[in-house]
Amino acid sequence: MIYFQCDYTEGAHPEIMKRLNETNFEQTPGYGTDYHCDRARQLIRTYCNAPDASVEFLVGGTQANALVIAAALRPHQGVISCDSGHINVHESGAIESYGHKVLTVPGHLGKLTAKQIDDTIVGHYEDPTAEHMVQPGMVYISFPTEAGTLYSKAELTAISEVCRKHDVPLFVDGARMGYGLMSEENDLTLEDFAKLTDVFYIGGTKVGALFGEAIVITNNSLKKDFRYLIKQHGGMLAKGRLLGIQFETLFEPTETGCLYADISGHAIQQAMRIKQAFAEAGFEFAPESPTNQQFPVLNQAQIDQLKDDYAFEIFSKLGEDAYQVRFCTSWATVAENVDKLIEDIKKLK
Amino acid sequence: MIYFQCDYTEGAHPEIMKRLNETNFEQTPGYGTDYHCDRARQLIRTYCNAPDASVEFLVGGTQANALVIAAALRPHQGVISCDSGHINVHESGAIESYGHKVLTVPGHLGKLTAKQIDDTIVGHYEDPTAEHMVQPGMVYISFPTEAGTLYSKAELTAISEVCRKHDVPLFVDGARMGYGLMSEENDLTLEDFAKLTDVFYIGGTKVGALFGEAIVITNNSLKKDFRYLIKQHGGMLAKGRLLGIQFETLFEPTETGCLYADISGHAIQQAMRIKQAFAEAGFEFAPESPTNQQFPVLNQAQIDQLKDDYAFEIFSKLGEDAYQVRFCTSWATVAENVDKLIEDIKKLK
Amino acid sequence: MIYFQCDYTEGAHPEIMKRLNETNFEQTPGYGTDYHCDRARQLIRTYCNAPDASVEFLVGGTQANALVIAAALRPHQGVISCDSGHINVHESGAIESYGHKVLTVPGHLGKLTAKQIDDTIVGHYEDPTAEHMVQPGMVYISFPTEAGTLYSKAELTAISEVCRKHDVPLFVDGARMGYGLMSEENDLTLEDFAKLTDVFYIGGTKVGALFGEAIVITNNSLKKDFRYLIKQHGGMLAKGRLLGIQFETLFEPTETGCLYADISGHAIQQAMRIKQAFAEAGFEFAPESPTNQQFPVLNQAQIDQLKDDYAFEIFSKLGEDAYQVRFCTSWATVAENVDKLIEDIKKLK
Amino acid sequence: MIYFQCDYTEGAHPEIMKRLNETNFEQTPGYGTDYHCDRARQLIRTYCNAPDASVEFLVGGTQANALVIAAALRPHQGVISCDSGHINVHESGAIESYGHKVLTVPGHLGKLTAKQIDDTIVGHYEDPTAEHMVQPGMVYISFPTEAGTLYSKAELTAISEVCRKHDVPLFVDGARMGYGLMSEENDLTLEDFAKLTDVFYIGGTKVGALFGEAIVITNNSLKKDFRYLIKQHGGMLAKGRLLGIQFETLFEPTETGCLYADISGHAIQQAMRIKQAFAEAGFEFAPESPTNQQFPVLNQAQIDQLKDDYAFEIFSKLGEDAYQVRFCTSWATVAENVDKLIEDIKKLK
Repeated sequence: MIYFQCDYTEGAHPEIMKRLNETNFEQTPGYGTDYHCDRARQLIRTYCNAPDASVEFLVGGTQANALVIAAALRPHQGVISCDSGHINVHESGAIESYGHKVLTVPGHLGKLTAKQIDDTIVGHYEDPTAEHMVQPGMVYISFPTEAGTLYSKAELTAISEVCRKHDVPLFVDGARMGYGLMSEENDLTLEDFAKLTDVFYIGGTKVGALFGEAIVITNNSLKKDFRYLIKQHGGMLAKGRLLGIQFETLFEPTETGCLYADISGHAIQQAMRIKQAFAEAGFEFAPESPTNQQFPVLNQAQIDQLKDDYAFEIFSKLGEDAYQVRFCTSWATVAENVDKLIEDIKKLK
Repeated sequence: MIYFQCDYTEGAHPEIMKRLNETNFEQTPGYGTDYHCDRARQLIRTYCNAPDASVEFLVGGTQANALVIAAALRPHQGVISCDSGHINVHESGAIESYGHKVLTVPGHLGKLTAKQIDDTIVGHYEDPTAEHMVQPGMVYISFPTEAGTLYSKAELTAISEVCRKHDVPLFVDGARMGYGLMSEENDLTLEDFAKLTDVFYIGGTKVGALFGEAIVITNNSLKKDFRYLIKQHGGMLAKGRLLGIQFETLFEPTETGCLYADISGHAIQQAMRIKQAFAEAGFEFAPESPTNQQFPVLNQAQIDQLKDDYAFEIFSKLGEDAYQVRFCTSWATVAENVDKLIEDIKKLK
Repeated sequence: MIYFQCDYTEGAHPEIMKRLNETNFEQTPGYGTDYHCDRARQLIRTYCNAPDASVEFLVGGTQANALVIAAALRPHQGVISCDSGHINVHESGAIESYGHKVLTVPGHLGKLTAKQIDDTIVGHYEDPTAEHMVQPGMVYISFPTEAGTLYSKAELTAISEVCRKHDVPLFVDGARMGYGLMSEENDLTLEDFAKLTDVFYIGGTKVGALFGEAIVITNNSLKKDFRYLIKQHGGMLAKGRLLGIQFETLFEPTETGCLYADISGHAIQQAMRIKQAFAEAGFEFAPESPTNQQFPVLNQAQIDQLKDDYAFEIFSKLGEDAYQVRFCTSWATVAENVDKLIEDIKKLK
Repeated sequence: MIYFQCDYTEGAHPEIMKRLNETNFEQTPGYGTDYHCDRARQLIRTYCNAPDASVEFLVGGTQANALVIAAALRPHQGVISCDSGHINVHESGAIESYGHKVLTVPGHLGKLTAKQIDDTIVGHYEDPTAEHMVQPGMVYISFPTEAGTLYSKAELTAISEVCRKHDVPLFVDGARMGYGLMSEENDLTLEDFAKLTDVFYIGGTKVGALFGEAIVITNNSLKKDFRYLIKQHGGMLAKGRLLGIQFETLFEPTETGCLYADISGHAIQQAMRIKQAFAEAGFEFAPESPTNQQFPVLNQAQIDQLKDDYAFEIFSKLGEDAYQVRFCTSWATVAENVDKLIEDIKKLK
């Protein structure tokens, strides 16, 4: 069985395992106050060209989302999100567990527009019963989105401008950030994210690390007391250096850039090969994705042809005999496995 | 500098690193549904002689405490805890963040008695204004306690009986469980904990793992939907197998028992050597501890004599020139470092 | 200016004021433990033919909704509601403030169907990622709905059966219960609500009282410790007898039934006169309502013709020059004012 | 039976009932936006000499406390309170239900000192593990306290200075404010409270109103969006004018001052007569109180002598045969009943 089911089926990139092994007997202070965390923070600040940003490390995405949102909002505020946003659908009510409503807006291909956000915020304040409603206090978007799509620099800039006009912070969930940055269609950089958002995170769990997300906070008011909140949310790892070591390894400058970019690029390359194979075989996509998640539309017979050799997810039923399925690549995807899949795609009837 | 500051200054026991390296390219399903987690669950159930127990893995202690308590309580209920309990003092309000009051009872040497617990519960229901107060809904104790002390089997049995009489679940925080179990003064086993409590956890973070706590739930009503709550609390690791592999390694039967017991025993041995050295040199303890945390009372001059070569914590000022300090050993403590410390203790004036 | 803006523009029915005046110097114990509360509870139980029901009184609807839902749900559960449900739209996130997601389902004329509820619950449990989602733990509907519409006995019975099949409690918000019960189209009784739901409330604030809602709980598991939760939510009025006296007055048997029924019937009668006037003048409704809220569709010129003499709400813009407006009647509506309005409706062009 | 059990056994002062009757058929907009609320706000601002203060009305004290504290704190912050503070003891965990810990400090006669507050705040920030603890974010005191005692102007000024030094808002629970202001020992005015605190409330429920507390907010950062929070907490009364009318009546200037002062003075006068009678008969107090709550120490035989004719509370057992009991007066206490009690006190053996 070859797995294209998700982007977290393996452990960590060998370079990260190597560094964890090498540093295993170092003695460091706990809770993220060690040398490795500080160095990783510095590397990330440099990549973001954001010398004043706070960088903090958390174990996973749900925690990162719940924590950032709880840190930003007052009790009567909610967070604007695309209806397909991870925080709305797949976090077991983590946002609500800290008291906040997810204010959903219908998305197109997993994305919101600046106009939708503007309309939502303006609409709230124009409503004579606004005080009886949940006030929009933050905007949450994902990059790449849950549908594998990307915001362009123009789109993100427009969203950023709307958020700043209304003084509503913008938060980008970058659980798969690397796979967005390295997409051929992408025109955004970490520096852009640092400039255009108030807070975002760079996902490690799905991009080469054992686990870990690096939160980058540029808005000063969100920085205050953030570590108290990390502790309260159960996010302050006793051996915090584990996160530092991993992000240090991912963002250490190399000849080609850094490990994070290199391995993300590899995943994109393999995903594009799979995409091309499906496209050439005449398949449609739902939707078309420029990133590491590919969503071809298959019928039941085609699914049956592939399912004994490949693990992939059946996402939703689109029609009588049409299913949206997902093939994921990752830093760990083996090119030979993709070769084999491509051959089998060609054989699909 | 030799570190006796805490029990989480290094990474993981080499055997755990070896297994993480060996399994790094295995492809497994996520979220704790993999083979390693299942095997670790089975091993722990066997050690606990609790075939029907639910075993779940979390990343850290604060998360484990907040989650178990939130899972057990209704909104108007609180958790009885010793005033020195970790949940009351050092978790940044994590328990309260899920809506629950910590009902503190003054402890003696970090411990509560069955009578105190009984009095608290009976006192609540006898109060004519009970409905205006927080109802005791769970009892939380630590083993070992934050003061390094232990409950005896007789004490835990008495507490268990009180809890069952009132139908109030008993929860044991075992962040340092190994160091309690292997203490010479201890007469409790994992099987006892499974029998006498409703839920407890076996700490990995401080006992050989990179991170991780294994929650053992024997009370059926607490088992229901527990995984939803793990997800909601941000505790469901995408690569859940990392926890499974670590606990599998710790509880794999060996000739001498298991790695968890062996390395805990090592820490206790080194702690007892330090304790004896301080005792023979005429020092007092605050309090005397049979586990891996030692709390000798030093004056400022003595602290100054040691502080350049050894890292240790100054916990509190006890008198004019008397300080409670803490020396911790762990699975990673090197015997030669303890030799050197003992020589230096002998030189203290 | 004649007010048809809402159903809470006046104080209380004179009979209630009379009883409050008469009892003003009685000395009673506090917090709803007095004679008047007990008697009101007994009267309501009798009307509901539910001798074992718990009846509790709260000051207002938002509090009642947040409290009942928080009492029923575990932390990972949410409440199914029509998208237009009051708890989803107009309670400033009160439900979320206690940690629970409102699981919205698109409504038709403010109503959900049994099939939609069944599909939502079944869909949740069939989803392979259910543990990553919010579990449906309660169903909330309003009677009458926010659109003035009513569930029939057949519809409520079908919903009740679905809820019981899945062991998900059914909660009915009856803020305007009287205006539903007395509608000519209605075929439900308080006894039906007690039989078919797990908990519902009978609104007083909009139906003759100064304030107050009577919660009727028939599901035993929801009764336990309910008064603790009332206190926690700030809902336990020190002078609880104020609520008892009001509901005693409303449900005291009279020759024609009881004050609650009589004054609700009056409001319906006046609303039907207004409805008929608009219908005869050729106006459409959005939607047609058999209760005390009437939603005719007017254009701007027509609004302008009426707005100097009558207060009414402009709810939403339906088209180029078409607005959904609301005229409310209540127990306090004066027939002569309706006569005048009818004359003016006839003059609309 | 004559009731001295608490200060909320009757309805409202007749003047308030009269105004409620007179205004019963006025038609007003809802939710506290009416003329009466505005006028009551203005009267209170004038009494407080605080033209820029926000004044909002809530139904009861628990709601007021939970709301103000939730409005002021970020998630990782708690509220400093005397251990005997109402929020710590008698609100069923309302503060915690919104996520905040009550940081208790041992009180003396129900009071905290400026030094205790300073030590608590300074101690927090000096602790090297501060980030693992709950940050003090507000100070809560009661005036009069739960023990019937009063802060002097010097004491309140010192507390205010400590709070401002640390930028921690000061909140005064004035559920019995009138009985404090009119005490002979008192040297504080509403103007002082407005100057020295950030937010406080003037209790109506126990001082002549049917129900209601008037919150006075002078700190600008606490004013923002406060009405959203009122709605979220279920505190926005549909017929908000009921609160406005009551506070308008209480604070309408009269020849002698205002009704609020007059009726509070009456209660104090009667309480002092009871106090003097107990003192002259040789009884001790626990503690001595200058306000409307009197806590003489009685033995069982003395309790038995009084309990058939008078309702009073037995608060706690102080010794072998010594009980702290409470006699309360209020605006409604009848002088003749006090005459009779005094005669019976004289007969106690």
